[in-house]
Amino acid sequence: MLRVQKYGGSSVASADHIRRVAARIARERRAGHDLVVVVSAMGQTTDQLIELSRSISRNPAPREMDLLLSTGELVSGALLAMALREHGLGAVSLSGFQAGIRTDTDFSRARITQIEPGRLHDEIGRGNIVIVAGFQGTTDDLEVTTLGRGGSDTTAVALAAALRAPVCEIYTDVDGVHTADPRIVPAARRLIDISYEEMLEMASEGAKVMHNRAVELGWVYDVPILVASSLTDDSGGTRIHGGTLMENRNKVRGIAHDAGIARVTLLGVPDRPGIAAQVFSPLADAGISVDIIVQNAGRHGMSDVSFTVTRADLPATLERMRAIREDIGAADVTADDNLAKVSIIGAGLTNAPGYAGAMFRALRDAAINIEMITTAEISLTCVVHQDRVDDAVRALHRAFSLETPDDMPR
Amino acid sequence: MLRVQKYGGSSVASADHIRRVAARIARERRAGHDLVVVVSAMGQTTDQLIELSRSISRNPAPREMDLLLSTGELVSGALLAMALREHGLGAVSLSGFQAGIRTDTDFSRARITQIEPGRLHDEIGRGNIVIVAGFQGTTDDLEVTTLGRGGSDTTAVALAAALRAPVCEIYTDVDGVHTADPRIVPAARRLIDISYEEMLEMASEGAKVMHNRAVELGWVYDVPILVASSLTDDSGGTRIHGGTLMENRNKVRGIAHDAGIARVTLLGVPDRPGIAAQVFSPLADAGISVDIIVQNAGRHGMSDVSFTVTRADLPATLERMRAIREDIGAADVTADDNLAKVSIIGAGLTNAPGYAGAMFRALRDAAINIEMITTAEISLTCVVHQDRVDDAVRALHRAFSLETPDDMPR
Repeated sequence: MLRVQKYGGSSVASADHIRRVAARIARERRAGHDLVVVVSAMGQTTDQLIELSRSISRNPAPREMDLLLSTGELVSGALLAMALREHGLGAVSLSGFQAGIRTDTDFSRARITQIEPGRLHDEIGRGNIVIVAGFQGTTDDLEVTTLGRGGSDTTAVALAAALRAPVCEIYTDVDGVHTADPRIVPAARRLIDISYEEMLEMASEGAKVMHNRAVELGWVYDVPILVASSLTDDSGGTRIHGGTLMENRNKVRGIAHDAGIARVTLLGVPDRPGIAAQVFSPLADAGISVDIIVQNAGRHGMSDVSFTVTRADLPATLERMRAIREDIGAADVTADDNLAKVSIIGAGLTNAPGYAGAMFRALRDAAINIEMITTAEISLTCVVHQDRVDDAVRALHRAFSLETPDDMPR
Repeated sequence: MLRVQKYGGSSVASADHIRRVAARIARERRAGHDLVVVVSAMGQTTDQLIELSRSISRNPAPREMDLLLSTGELVSGALLAMALREHGLGAVSLSGFQAGIRTDTDFSRARITQIEPGRLHDEIGRGNIVIVAGFQGTTDDLEVTTLGRGGSDTTAVALAAALRAPVCEIYTDVDGVHTADPRIVPAARRLIDISYEEMLEMASEGAKVMHNRAVELGWVYDVPILVASSLTDDSGGTRIHGGTLMENRNKVRGIAHDAGIARVTLLGVPDRPGIAAQVFSPLADAGISVDIIVQNAGRHGMSDVSFTVTRADLPATLERMRAIREDIGAADVTADDNLAKVSIIGAGLTNAPGYAGAMFRALRDAAINIEMITTAEISLTCVVHQDRVDDAVRALHRAFSLETPDDMPR
């Protein structure tokens, strides 16, 4: 069976780590599997290269930045191939270019446009374990690009799709996706499986297990993704897939949270067409992402508009809002930079009765005030004060009985 | 004017160094020159990568080693391009592959087979300063190769030849080629010019200023090479070229030396055809380079054969000689591992009368015993005891009046 695996930076952080990963891969090779292995750069390499570049230029050219950063994965790839050859196995490491990974020209966050798998098939046919430098590709003009943070996950899923592997295995330093952050909820359980859609909500809401783009790609190409720990050999991990999840339909699967949220409110905005564009266009132009937007019903033709941004973006956001306040005729601009989001996630939740009520009751019983509420297809999110978010996660985990196993092995 | 320059590892050893090199290049760009700049890896990067690989494999696959080592020059190249853009100048860094440097498949010591200069011309035409990662290229199968130690010099000379630059400028941490090692002879002078041929002798005899392959390539393609310091802005340096050097013909240009020599002697070897092959073939097979070979005239059909190897190769050499001693009928094998070479270098020397005698007299007057003598077209070499080699260099530098300027600026 062809297996496509990815090992993250913490799994190849040192020569010792690389030897350990090699031993693991060697066992799987000896069990008869063909293997294509995507690697990230060793440990903090990428951050160190970024730091080095910043000491030379505060705003380095993205093209040069990508060429610079692409070296980290070349190093870990070559070392892993060497370590595998110490086991007497054929192994070859390929750059993104050599592995046929073609991208658009959007440096530092390029998207894969195509995989030319000729060389990959050749090397597999020769009996080699193929190591592929993650996070990178080349444009049609042979420029080196990187795929942005978490890009090695995307490389792995794209290769699994191109090579029609039955699953893409992502090995990392956590053992899967949990019902909540185990640092906050000791009783949090690992989920045995989760749908792409739910995983996207879990990730964007703060469960930083893998990169959303990779999950989306898996969804589009219907590649199941196994997220598991590289440190253990058990058959654990969480399987992300597009199954119907009948057993889990209409159930809360997990609690996500995201601290570091700021809310901006425009008070007394006249109710007239075009206001939203006037408010949010300058933010988009400045590259500021707006998350939750809430507009209260108008009274006397006036309404209040609230939205959230990351705390880091708050000063720039306020500057732009104050610049347009008079133009749009808002009475005032206020801000609160001490908020957090907490969400319950589950396919079909918002169409099922009772979940919103149960969520609000749980927060009330814990004496936690709700600042904003927003709903999506598979999630319900409340904004609360930052200093109560851990309590909120624990209260919701308990309220929806997530400590009790209900996953069915598939 | 198109200038091709190369900056060595010590010139780009840190972010500060890179900024300094960038300032220098920026001035030359503003003076109206087109520039193609070859860089080595930062400082000790290559050695660190080698060490990392050795911690994983004692005998890493050359293909993987080359992919690994090629990253060092990609990093310094990208950083230098960033530093140049801080000066408001267009700059782009290219990998060996992107710069069109094609090589044979001899990993770790590949030879350049061809330069495809299309991209280089394009970038120059766009007004960009082109930074090229030295020391690397790709095969026709798109495998990454390295050119061996000192390979960045070779890259620079090859690019100067392909782009028809009037000169190849090699910037390093010394200010040129000297009449002798200045650490031994304080009165040693920088040579203003030197022929390719003399430079090859100076280099192979121990004046480690630049890589011999690069000098040979310059000779073949008639590319003059300027070796100068990257730390000063004066018009110094040594020009290596194919001029007739009329002024300097039949003069000693410099004193080279090489410590760490070992001599092996086979005593009482029967004088019969095929003996030399029997002695030296096993050494060639073992990758041991033999330097000086001296065979004494036979007496009673017997002769003594002496040859030198590096001290590091002595144990392996002795092992092989003892293995064949009986076969070839030699009486004994002896060794002396405490020797050094000292040479006088100059075009036409050996055809001119008097130099050998003057050399031997100078050593005699300094009470230095000569162990072996060998002559080449443009050099005379004596092997002496290691603890007297510095004295020998000083005595010869004085005897041939090398402290007195005689170079004519060209």
